[in-house]
Amino acid sequence: MEVQIAVAKVNKYATSESGDTLEVVERPNGGLSVVLADGQSSGRGAKAISQMVVRKVIGLLAEGVRDGAAARAASDTLFTDKQGKVISTLNIASLDLSSGTIVLTRNNRIPLGTSRNVRPLITEIAIEPGLIAVIYTDGLTHAGKRRGAPMDVGATIRAILEDQDPSPQMLADTLLAEAVNLDENRPADDISVLALKVTSRTGDNVRRMTVRLPIEGNWRL
Amino acid sequence: MEVQIAVAKVNKYATSESGDTLEVVERPNGGLSVVLADGQSSGRGAKAISQMVVRKVIGLLAEGVRDGAAARAASDTLFTDKQGKVISTLNIASLDLSSGTIVLTRNNRIPLGTSRNVRPLITEIAIEPGLIAVIYTDGLTHAGKRRGAPMDVGATIRAILEDQDPSPQMLADTLLAEAVNLDENRPADDISVLALKVTSRTGDNVRRMTVRLPIEGNWRL
Repeated sequence: MEVQIAVAKVNKYATSESGDTLEVVERPNGGLSVVLADGQSSGRGAKAISQMVVRKVIGLLAEGVRDGAAARAASDTLFTDKQGKVISTLNIASLDLSSGTIVLTRNNRIPLGTSRNVRPLITEIAIEPGLIAVIYTDGLTHAGKRRGAPMDVGATIRAILEDQDPSPQMLADTLLAEAVNLDENRPADDISVLALKVTSRTGDNVRRMTVRLPIEGNWRL
Repeated sequence: MEVQIAVAKVNKYATSESGDTLEVVERPNGGLSVVLADGQSSGRGAKAISQMVVRKVIGLLAEGVRDGAAARAASDTLFTDKQGKVISTLNIASLDLSSGTIVLTRNNRIPLGTSRNVRPLITEIAIEPGLIAVIYTDGLTHAGKRRGAPMDVGATIRAILEDQDPSPQMLADTLLAEAVNLDENRPADDISVLALKVTSRTGDNVRRMTVRLPIEGNWRL
């Protein structure tokens, strides 16, 4: 089998910094975790919040702390620091090779930093070919709202899956492109889309990663 | 312009854990850094060392510490912890958007943890189309030595570059495949190859990342 993860990410129109932060960390007991946080508001302040949350979670996961405990710790840290005035969503997608499962840890409806009792929603799914998971920040669901034609993310995903056997990169790229299109090429919010797919591919034993960064005139992404 | 980074990574034959650790972190002042460490020996012990080094460096870079200072700090931490008995190589490739440069920070001939005075080699290059950098752990240069036919990495890179305009993924994949071939499909050491390329591509403003992990029978990579 092979697990493929793809991310596509764009800034809110005319902002040089995304309030979304996404990072990947190796799990000390095997596998990896992708951590995605969306800090309140946009621009530099939001970036600082989402970076703080992601750094906290990644540091704990790297020490072997379980995903749910890492999410609670990040929430408590944010609440202590900002006294409930600043919040952040958090999604962790973990490929946990010690249990043979994909673990999804989510704080979206109840974001981090709101109170001392924030708990994540945790879903654990066996790793098997055909499994697809899609994670995104709310910029995707807000796309098109300005024009009164909001994006139906579920319907878009179903349409992509019906037509073909899309790679995760194609899935993430198509969702993002649809959202940017609905926002008339001026995204109303930062948008991050992550797609994970388990395939039955058996080839070499090589782990691969690619990163592509467009560079704008002002150098800052 | 667009900066593309690709990584291909394989474990030493018959080991479930790579002694090489590679992670990517966003730089707080714009851009990103890829951090690659190769811990002494192989297997679980080496992994713990390279993970400790990479975590230390990434944590400091995320706080805005400069690459050279982060490398020195990781060396001092390793030296203090292991009293010079355990070493690790370290390579940092940074896309620094605040200065518009690629910064390469290297501790290979003088690895981390050997003494209190370890200094990295630092090279700073302007980001411009056509720039290619290749970074690898010593598993690549050791490939084929068992058979007395060691790999000539420079010649292999030149041959790939002569034939075509290779993507970074093709460059990394071809180098790794050549090494694995010289080791008769049983790599004598962990091998990690990173290729970075600056292209003149101007397209959308989307940042993209893909990760591909083959999963073996025993679940652990």
